Amino acid sequence: MEDIVLKFKERPKLENTVLIEGLPGVGNVGKLAAEHLIDEIDAELFCEIYSIYLPPQVLVSEEGLAELVNNELYYKKDVGKDNIDLLILTGDYQGMTPQGQYQLTDKILSMSEDHDVKKIFSLGGYGQGEMVEKPDVLGAVTDEELIDEMEELGVVFSEEHPSSGIVGASGLLLGMGKRLYNINGICLMGETSGYFVDPGAARAVLKILVKSLGFEVEYDKLDDKAKEVESLTTKLKEMDPSTGMQQDTGKEDLSYIG
Amino acid sequence: MEDIVLKFKERPKLENTVLIEGLPGVGNVGKLAAEHLIDEIDAELFCEIYSIYLPPQVLVSEEGLAELVNNELYYKKDVGKDNIDLLILTGDYQGMTPQGQYQLTDKILSMSEDHDVKKIFSLGGYGQGEMVEKPDVLGAVTDEELIDEMEELGVVFSEEHPSSGIVGASGLLLGMGKRLYNINGICLMGETSGYFVDPGAARAVLKILVKSLGFEVEYDKLDDKAKEVESLTTKLKEMDPSTGMQQDTGKEDLSYIG
Amino acid sequence: MEDIVLKFKERPKLENTVLIEGLPGVGNVGKLAAEHLIDEIDAELFCEIYSIYLPPQVLVSEEGLAELVNNELYYKKDVGKDNIDLLILTGDYQGMTPQGQYQLTDKILSMSEDHDVKKIFSLGGYGQGEMVEKPDVLGAVTDEELIDEMEELGVVFSEEHPSSGIVGASGLLLGMGKRLYNINGICLMGETSGYFVDPGAARAVLKILVKSLGFEVEYDKLDDKAKEVESLTTKLKEMDPSTGMQQDTGKEDLSYIG
Amino acid sequence: MEDIVLKFKERPKLENTVLIEGLPGVGNVGKLAAEHLIDEIDAELFCEIYSIYLPPQVLVSEEGLAELVNNELYYKKDVGKDNIDLLILTGDYQGMTPQGQYQLTDKILSMSEDHDVKKIFSLGGYGQGEMVEKPDVLGAVTDEELIDEMEELGVVFSEEHPSSGIVGASGLLLGMGKRLYNINGICLMGETSGYFVDPGAARAVLKILVKSLGFEVEYDKLDDKAKEVESLTTKLKEMDPSTGMQQDTGKEDLSYIG
Repeated sequence: MEDIVLKFKERPKLENTVLIEGLPGVGNVGKLAAEHLIDEIDAELFCEIYSIYLPPQVLVSEEGLAELVNNELYYKKDVGKDNIDLLILTGDYQGMTPQGQYQLTDKILSMSEDHDVKKIFSLGGYGQGEMVEKPDVLGAVTDEELIDEMEELGVVFSEEHPSSGIVGASGLLLGMGKRLYNINGICLMGETSGYFVDPGAARAVLKILVKSLGFEVEYDKLDDKAKEVESLTTKLKEMDPSTGMQQDTGKEDLSYIG
Repeated sequence: MEDIVLKFKERPKLENTVLIEGLPGVGNVGKLAAEHLIDEIDAELFCEIYSIYLPPQVLVSEEGLAELVNNELYYKKDVGKDNIDLLILTGDYQGMTPQGQYQLTDKILSMSEDHDVKKIFSLGGYGQGEMVEKPDVLGAVTDEELIDEMEELGVVFSEEHPSSGIVGASGLLLGMGKRLYNINGICLMGETSGYFVDPGAARAVLKILVKSLGFEVEYDKLDDKAKEVESLTTKLKEMDPSTGMQQDTGKEDLSYIG
Repeated sequence: MEDIVLKFKERPKLENTVLIEGLPGVGNVGKLAAEHLIDEIDAELFCEIYSIYLPPQVLVSEEGLAELVNNELYYKKDVGKDNIDLLILTGDYQGMTPQGQYQLTDKILSMSEDHDVKKIFSLGGYGQGEMVEKPDVLGAVTDEELIDEMEELGVVFSEEHPSSGIVGASGLLLGMGKRLYNINGICLMGETSGYFVDPGAARAVLKILVKSLGFEVEYDKLDDKAKEVESLTTKLKEMDPSTGMQQDTGKEDLSYIG
Repeated sequence: MEDIVLKFKERPKLENTVLIEGLPGVGNVGKLAAEHLIDEIDAELFCEIYSIYLPPQVLVSEEGLAELVNNELYYKKDVGKDNIDLLILTGDYQGMTPQGQYQLTDKILSMSEDHDVKKIFSLGGYGQGEMVEKPDVLGAVTDEELIDEMEELGVVFSEEHPSSGIVGASGLLLGMGKRLYNINGICLMGETSGYFVDPGAARAVLKILVKSLGFEVEYDKLDDKAKEVESLTTKLKEMDPSTGMQQDTGKEDLSYIG
């Protein structure tokens, strides 16, 4: 088989497009944000991506239906103040190897000319290693001019982490987009503990994104998920007041919420 | 060399075919079931599969004969009530890398058009982490309509494991079969401890399979193997009554039975 | 994407060229030396190398600018007593896999004919496992005749380590340069503890290099960095006089200096 | 670069050829035997094999000369009672990945038609996990008829290890030689502790090999190496009489003897 197989359900004609990425990662922040956005604006699935770089696995639903792991592309036309089109990437997993990360990202970017992609937003979490009450959204950009624009929306460009990097699809879409495809990009990273899936951080990230794009969405479902997680983490604290956390158990119990 | 090399001994013309997979895995359940089936219906080896994705190794028989590790395809024509043809995949190992798993599975599926494959059964074990008295057979399918059909045969579609997956050939044959080749499939997983090779679980899986395909086989040899394993595990329990198990020793002693 | 992508900013015409490599490695000695040389002689960046063999990552600057990790080629014409041209290779990372190391090195060497490369210097550190007061520069060469030449410059050809090897780009440039491209090479390895980035060892290596090429550079900036590291390691010794070292903390504090 | 690069120094015309493999492995038995044979019969190096599947490394001699790691092919014409030609494979390392093992072995075998290879001997060690006073030579073959022939020469076909395998080049040359190139082969494995390089086991293996091929060699140099190892292991036993062995130290001290 080809290393990456695209199965198109539809061939939308997109213009003046913003590419948004939300794949699994720290706190599952990016994936939660992208999936919530897809739900709220009723974006359309038009392309499934299967690849030898993804785990050799099917996921099985509660009813017993097996689905080959994949990445998915959704679109929505005429969104926000400027009638932009959105192209949204989400999925079950990121590429499992460095080569897989590069090739999957390149496949997405190679479609960007056809889809008239003008800007890229990659969404993710920033693990702080401790519980975060009110998550900031940290930023990284490919062009200095984007810093002011993002700071006005509340994005924090921290000097605390001088030489840190962004690993995986969120980083590569920015870096390869800029260097190999000449498209500018912004990475929005919601602060999160890194121990649990974090719908609260996803909300913070999404709020900045939609403000930047000039439209609004509801957050009820994300808020419900956040409450569910909070209730579970509170229970865990009560079970083990000394450490305030039972990491392993917690992870297992919460992992399916995302 | 090519990544995957097929050595044909014969080119059978198959029609109305069911593909059955039983490669090594948890409790060796799938491999035991497939090999027993091959023996009982006297299926014919027609294709050996060698590959850089398999371990770089020969196996040596008791007499001292070295054989390059491989996968094998067997066939049997006009089986059961509907005179279906069977295509059975078994082998020494599964692919050692994700890429290898994908490519080996794709090679099998790419032959399915020629062989008129209409349905896929992948056989495996489901590790419960504790001894299983009477193994259920859990199921996963690629199409909702298959659930009823399988439940009537006694397959359990459990809601206990909502987001679990099936890794390896058993999963990929279903997922890739459905998405890339448009063939439906059923995975039958026999409950097993996961500590020993489990001819009992293999029998449970095989019983469902042949009922579904409308024929019968004897189970004497599987029953003999099951007794042999049981006798050894009982001895182990006696040796160490506190834990009831000496895992490492047990594994070594029993591994050659399969 | 291609496994290795070259982005040329300029296509210099080089003659009578010496290729100098300083990529990250033990004590970051080679990279520090190459970067200092580039600064001092004002060498020009003319080619960026992106590759699936590098980590799938962007680095983020203090201001928040994301840059795809890469290797870089610089040049400087008419240097030293013989008006040689220099081709200097440095970068963020070495290839992450053996295959990546081979292919990235081969890509550099395959450009060497066009650039009339006559000799290769690879720069690195030699980890001694203990603090080194006054670092020697150890050597390895691809041709016996180069030994005398290098010994006259003060390079040590030690018999202490009979069967040791040089792993990575510094080794491959020599070995592949000689065997596959018929270009001789010299590896200069500055003694270093291996625990910290080591501008002092970089200075020692660079001093031999420029003497060999017949020109001089200032070392003020390397000396400043060396003092900064020394001051930090001294503090660490005071914090933990028993061991004289707090490795993990030290590494983290010093890693950004390079 | 090509995955595997052959550099020919000469293109010998071989007939009625026996291929002998002795690459690094357990106790370095195969490599010691092959190198001793090359020395004793004065075989000629005619092909160097470089590959991305070998470690990305140069080895450095005592004098400071760097050599890219490789495999090497030697030949000797008109050897023994039947005037056979010998093709001998040895080298610094085996392939580092399963794929590398397969491709390197296939490259050797693909040359076998040109060189009229009629039979393959792969040489190696069989780790017993304890000191071996008088090493037997265990055998594995690709054809039943070879068993009698080898038993007459003193090779042991043990039933002790029913389902064990032979991993790496020694196994693949047999398995791929038989299945993909239709050439029969014999693996000779000298019993060894597995803790040290073992010139004694190499001698035992070589003695069988040359008897089978109908000629004789001297063993003085192997005997000297064996005494050197014995003297060192005896010292180690004296240093630690309780265990009789200081594994880590021992390994380091002895590794360069091979």
